[in-house]
Order: sequence, then structure tokens, then C-alpha cells
Amino acid sequence: MTGGRDEIEALIALMARLPGLGPRSARRAVLHLISKRTQLMGPLAEAMAGVARTARECARCGNISTAPICEICEDPKRATGEICVIEDVADLWAMERGHAFKGRYHVLGGTLSALDAIGPEDLRIPDLLERVAAEGISEVILALNATVEGQTTAHYIAEALEGRGVTVTSLAQGVPIGGELDYLDDGTIQAALRARKAF
Amino acid sequence: MTGGRDEIEALIALMARLPGLGPRSARRAVLHLISKRTQLMGPLAEAMAGVARTARECARCGNISTAPICEICEDPKRATGEICVIEDVADLWAMERGHAFKGRYHVLGGTLSALDAIGPEDLRIPDLLERVAAEGISEVILALNATVEGQTTAHYIAEALEGRGVTVTSLAQGVPIGGELDYLDDGTIQAALRARKAF
Repeated sequence: MTGGRDEIEALIALMARLPGLGPRSARRAVLHLISKRTQLMGPLAEAMAGVARTARECARCGNISTAPICEICEDPKRATGEICVIEDVADLWAMERGHAFKGRYHVLGGTLSALDAIGPEDLRIPDLLERVAAEGISEVILALNATVEGQTTAHYIAEALEGRGVTVTSLAQGVPIGGELDYLDDGTIQAALRARKAF
Repeated sequence: MTGGRDEIEALIALMARLPGLGPRSARRAVLHLISKRTQLMGPLAEAMAGVARTARECARCGNISTAPICEICEDPKRATGEICVIEDVADLWAMERGHAFKGRYHVLGGTLSALDAIGPEDLRIPDLLERVAAEGISEVILALNATVEGQTTAHYIAEALEGRGVTVTSLAQGVPIGGELDYLDDGTIQAALRARKAF
């Protein structure tokens, strides 16, 4: 339509493939970028190209890294004999924000799903079993989402680890800090009641 | 934290400045980009750098273009003597999607606002008055948003054009195509009733 419109349309189409952006919000984002060409669009394009060039998956745990083995895996202070199993890198970042876990991670890359034909071999489950043996792991903490798929996957891993001399634990379920009972779903209240503790 | 984490954090911070993305959705978008490094992230970075390098405002109408004068302004078939005045480039694109207007555009770059201290000189209003004289314009179509600011700006422009031998019109207001009366606001129903036509 207008000069360079094809180029701009191509950019909008690419932006619309980001999660959380549709065709309309991608258009708005691109217009905003164009209006902030030097302050935002140039630096963003450069940062994106840089990360695209250097980012890769840690060969050991699946975390995102610029090195073959990520900094967490390379950090000798984190060799605690504990592995925390999470679904994806977003969950790893969430755990790290909590500053509570000092061991290493293992990113599954999803959950088992009969519907989507995702079996253990499609996730990093065989790698996890190997690591447990090779790294002398004493505890595997299953920090999978409290969804049906997450819990199915947790049960599968717990069974696979049976008899390998490793303790398998999972995150506690209960009332979130600052949570109001009135706004919690019935399942959470039931789980919190079952797991009640002496006050 | 992890290898290259600073670089990734910097990218997330830039992404979070896009309209419609917050810190959390920017993080999700960046993780998605990293998981699709070659198919999506690389091409997106390249497209963005290309548009950042070439996109500029048309010196005549304010449309986005890669040339000093945009394709619509350069198109001799569109020299109809009609100028359609819109607030921003998103509105120009919306008009073009309608395929109904065959003249040229004038992008104001916003609306008058006493609150934000935006006066006529901060918009492309003086340029519009010049163009009306220089290009022998017979009709100015005000396609400003049906908001208080849009309508204030429309009235200001209509007054400024008075006595210059140009017809000033505005988009019709009424029931949108496919619109159900029950879901329309009172103002729209009142406007549609006032502007009723013989059936």
C-alpha cells in the first residue's frame, strides 16, 4: 500500500506470532516501535539478534544459557545432591526468584500428554534418570504445576525413580501466602486441610 | 544468574516496553522466542532492524513510509482533491482496510488536549492548512475518533478552514453494520436517530 508497507506487514505478521499478541496488538506494537525507532526499535532488534545468536539449551539441565553448560550447573556451590524438576524454563526462573532452592535443576520441556502423544522420550525424563545415577543425587524435588498433566508426569517420574535409592519429594500444596480462603478453589482448601499442621 | 542471563534480562526489559506486554508477558514472549530461535527470533530481529533502518514519516502527510514521500501521496490516481484527516497511522491503516477512500491522507499525530498541553502547533494542523491551499483541495474529510478529544480537534480544524473555499465533512455516526441496538450506548442511538434517513 504505502512505501515499505510490505516490510512493515511482514514485521507485524512475525510479531503476531508472539504469545499474548494477536494481529491487532501486533499492529499497535509495531506502530509504537516505529514511533520510537532510535530509542526502542533499534536496541530491541539488536538485543533480539544477540540472544538469538548466543542462547542455547544447557546440555545437562535444559536451562537457557549462552554456554554449552549453564551457570547453575557449573556452579560448584550448587552441587547439593538435590535436583529440582520443573516443566519449563519459566518455572526455573520462578524458582530462582524465590531464592529458596540451592541445588540444581532439570527442565523437562513439557508434561506427559496422551492426547498430544507426548511420551517420556519426548521430554528430558531419560536424561533425568541418567543424571540421578551419574551425579549421586540424593533427593529429586518435583516442582511440577498442580495441573492434571503436571501431576501425571510427577507420578510417572516418582515411579521411574523407585528403587534407585533417591528420595522423591514434591512442593507442598496449601493456602498461598496472602491468600484469602474466600477466593480459593475447593481443591486447594481440601489439600490445605488434609496437610494441616500443629500450630 | 545463568549464562547470558543479563543479555536475556535486558531483552525482556525492552520487550516489556511494548504496548500490551507487561513484565510477565514479556518474559513469556522472550522464552517463546528463544525456543524458536531460528524460525522466529532471527527473522523477527532482522525484520525489526530493517524497518528501524528504513521507516520514516512521509514529509507531506505523516504516514509511515520508507521514502521521503509515501506511496499514497506519490500515487497520481489518488489526487482527487480530497484529504482525509486522521489522528494516527493506525487510523490511516483502518481507513485503507475499508477500501472506500480514494484520496490522500493527513495524519495529525494526536488530538488537541488542554490537559496534556497539546496545541495546534504540536499536531500537523498548520501543515494541513498549507496543504489545503497548495494542493487545491476541495474537500477535507474529518475522520477523527468519536471521543471528546477527537471531536474538539475536529471542531478546531473546521473553524480554521472556514472561509478557505473548502468543504469540510465528517464520517457519519450511527449504528455499526451488524450492530445490535441492545448493545449500543445511548449516545450512538441518539446520534443514529437524529441522522435517520428515508427508508
